[in-house]
Amino acid sequence: MKPSIPKGTRDFLPGEVYKRKYIFDTIEGVYRKYGYSPIETPAMESLSTLTGKYGEEGDKLLFKILNNGDFLAKADEGALQSRNSDQLISSISKRGLRYDLTVPFARFVVMHQNEISFPFKRYQIQPVWRADRPQKGRYQEFWQCDADVVGSNSLIYEAEIIEMLYEVYEKLGIDVMIRINNRKLLNGIAEVCGIADQFMDMTIAIDKLDKIGSQGVIKELAAKEISEEVANKLLRMVTAKNLEDIRQGLANSEIGCKGIAELDTIFKYLEGRPSLHKVTIDPTLARGLNYYTGCIFEVVHNEDSYPDLKMGSISGGGRYDNLTEVFGMKGNSGVGISFGADRIYDVLETLDLYPDTIQETIDLLLVAFDEKSHDYAYKALLKLRDAGVRADLYPEPAKMKKQLKYADDRAIKWVGIIGDNEMNQNTVMLKNMNTGKQEAVAVDLLIDKMS
Amino acid sequence: MKPSIPKGTRDFLPGEVYKRKYIFDTIEGVYRKYGYSPIETPAMESLSTLTGKYGEEGDKLLFKILNNGDFLAKADEGALQSRNSDQLISSISKRGLRYDLTVPFARFVVMHQNEISFPFKRYQIQPVWRADRPQKGRYQEFWQCDADVVGSNSLIYEAEIIEMLYEVYEKLGIDVMIRINNRKLLNGIAEVCGIADQFMDMTIAIDKLDKIGSQGVIKELAAKEISEEVANKLLRMVTAKNLEDIRQGLANSEIGCKGIAELDTIFKYLEGRPSLHKVTIDPTLARGLNYYTGCIFEVVHNEDSYPDLKMGSISGGGRYDNLTEVFGMKGNSGVGISFGADRIYDVLETLDLYPDTIQETIDLLLVAFDEKSHDYAYKALLKLRDAGVRADLYPEPAKMKKQLKYADDRAIKWVGIIGDNEMNQNTVMLKNMNTGKQEAVAVDLLIDKMS
Repeated sequence: MKPSIPKGTRDFLPGEVYKRKYIFDTIEGVYRKYGYSPIETPAMESLSTLTGKYGEEGDKLLFKILNNGDFLAKADEGALQSRNSDQLISSISKRGLRYDLTVPFARFVVMHQNEISFPFKRYQIQPVWRADRPQKGRYQEFWQCDADVVGSNSLIYEAEIIEMLYEVYEKLGIDVMIRINNRKLLNGIAEVCGIADQFMDMTIAIDKLDKIGSQGVIKELAAKEISEEVANKLLRMVTAKNLEDIRQGLANSEIGCKGIAELDTIFKYLEGRPSLHKVTIDPTLARGLNYYTGCIFEVVHNEDSYPDLKMGSISGGGRYDNLTEVFGMKGNSGVGISFGADRIYDVLETLDLYPDTIQETIDLLLVAFDEKSHDYAYKALLKLRDAGVRADLYPEPAKMKKQLKYADDRAIKWVGIIGDNEMNQNTVMLKNMNTGKQEAVAVDLLIDKMS
Repeated sequence: MKPSIPKGTRDFLPGEVYKRKYIFDTIEGVYRKYGYSPIETPAMESLSTLTGKYGEEGDKLLFKILNNGDFLAKADEGALQSRNSDQLISSISKRGLRYDLTVPFARFVVMHQNEISFPFKRYQIQPVWRADRPQKGRYQEFWQCDADVVGSNSLIYEAEIIEMLYEVYEKLGIDVMIRINNRKLLNGIAEVCGIADQFMDMTIAIDKLDKIGSQGVIKELAAKEISEEVANKLLRMVTAKNLEDIRQGLANSEIGCKGIAELDTIFKYLEGRPSLHKVTIDPTLARGLNYYTGCIFEVVHNEDSYPDLKMGSISGGGRYDNLTEVFGMKGNSGVGISFGADRIYDVLETLDLYPDTIQETIDLLLVAFDEKSHDYAYKALLKLRDAGVRADLYPEPAKMKKQLKYADDRAIKWVGIIGDNEMNQNTVMLKNMNTGKQEAVAVDLLIDKMS
């Protein structure tokens, strides 16, 4: 039997784990600095928690877990007889794999509302699973790194999220653009264009502007019976180069003015901050409008800095006034951000931005020529380990070439070679695998040298 | 809708995450010191990888994932019509959740054999899932912390595992007993008792010795048509107080002598080591005999130190000569150990052994009396954060009592109170929430005081 893993999933070799850990640690360090605390939720959630939260398309992408035991005993007879898979599911599957971290978080907040204090600032770094068709950079198991604060309407947290985005990408060394929009701004624009009742048609069209261009948007809107005149007005507003132009256009829309006011407040909080230089208002940004009610964030790499890099958004987030309402807890506004670890991994890899220091390995490998020197080496190993040195010993006195190749494969810098001479002089021959240079060092001095 | 999570699964609140992280970090630190490198494997494996590896009972406890889309279209017609759940599974489910970390590791080694160097020392800390009936201390989602080395027969690694077990439990402050046995010893005992063809009957019975006593074992063996005389001989051998008594009894068994010789070698490696004091040879130890071929390890808490603690084994492991054979790669002996994080968590909790320092929170919470002082506090917050201080600000100038309660709930030691006086003097009133004492401190000095 030739082993394989399910399509869309991955094994991670040590080198990859270290790189991923570097990303997670960077994000986690910033989250903690800003006062977010870690929580974890189970991989499996009740299907009733997950179903209906991600739209019809999302329901299809949920991984469902078959009930254990004789699951057919309680299966829906009608669905079985008509061979209706969709209808059958709820009678043979009670659980599904986590699809994102936001819905489990909302469920968590409602379940644990008496054990936490509001505003509750939490972060969560865990894998999620989606039955998407696998393709380059898209996996069925991938990691999200979310921070959310729930239980406050304060726009101070929108500013905080921008500060955190800035700090994480500064630390990672990726030059980014933080795009920001506000759903109320979009509501206002729809209002003044007279197409408030076609809000979703409008946002779906303008979201595609950079892909299909103005003519494409006009055509798409025409198909929804929105006139070219209205479409042009809309396009002028969403492509306005600064907040002032938009502000004037929205003067007669109450909700539009509210959106502008929210952005004003956030910018006031960011006055004089370096993070502000990375922020761009982008009224065409229309992600997550099924749930976001206020600000919307998206981070992309700065195309001017990396003209050849092809990569979608690497972070996204926003405010949702009704985060916990679906689980029966009203009036709990939340705002959050999610880092896509897998895409960030690819960006760092492509741009060669990983620090050299993250590839951890042991400090020293001892190798011996024969049984006698191997015994001696073993005793030296124990001394080194007792002193806290990360040392290892090749398990038997194999051919020296083989042992040195092993050190090389594991990218170990220092090798301590032990033969008769070394035993007699109570030393090891310390070889630098990078330079090839070697020198005799007393075992006791080796401890100092390695620690 | 009142939210809940599937039985046997858990949410982890921040305090629990920190405690768990302390356990994982301790184990991981030791693994790394001894030269083990991290790998990760997907939560989902192909069912063909998992099925048949854990016995019939294990197959039933696998969580199976329903194929996405119209899964009934390819369902086994016969199984559907006869309502045969077991027979239907393979046609509607291709994937299952990881049941342990050993089988995925074996699969990993075979798949990546050209990317790794042998002996390959890896550790892996990930959750596994089993559809066991949930009960106190037993969960359907739980974490394993495994280290294995594959590609060497050297008994140096058995000694290394004992050293690692010792070091982890020393660091955690749990007094343990490391029980060790060897399958070859058991084979030898069966041989000299003349019941080599009833090996499994024998080991199942003696494994229960401490529960059912000698008479119970004799009765159980009698049911397998093993005479009382033989049973008594067996009991004398497995309850021998030292290796010498067993050695004599096994002198005529080749495999028995081999088992003794392996133990001798391991003890030679451990000569003079503090870890040796924790080791007990226990010929009744019979865990994992379906796969272990050499040494077997089990760690339990020392009952003399904690007479009231009720807890099963907290670590277990052993050597398996055929780790990768089922995936088509022969002659790859492995030896490994697994820490049960959830049980260790319960032990540390029961014995109150967590260090006080692991409950991380922010250094300082700023609170303000009114809008004006809130603006001032926000600017102080930015200064503190820019200096690397983990500071936070209550998001609005709510009632002081409410803000201080929030600091208390989050176990924040220092609160910086800001009102008119503080603004005028460019200070904050720094309150120690533990002692209640407070003093005025200049904002710039606050940075030094907090970092």
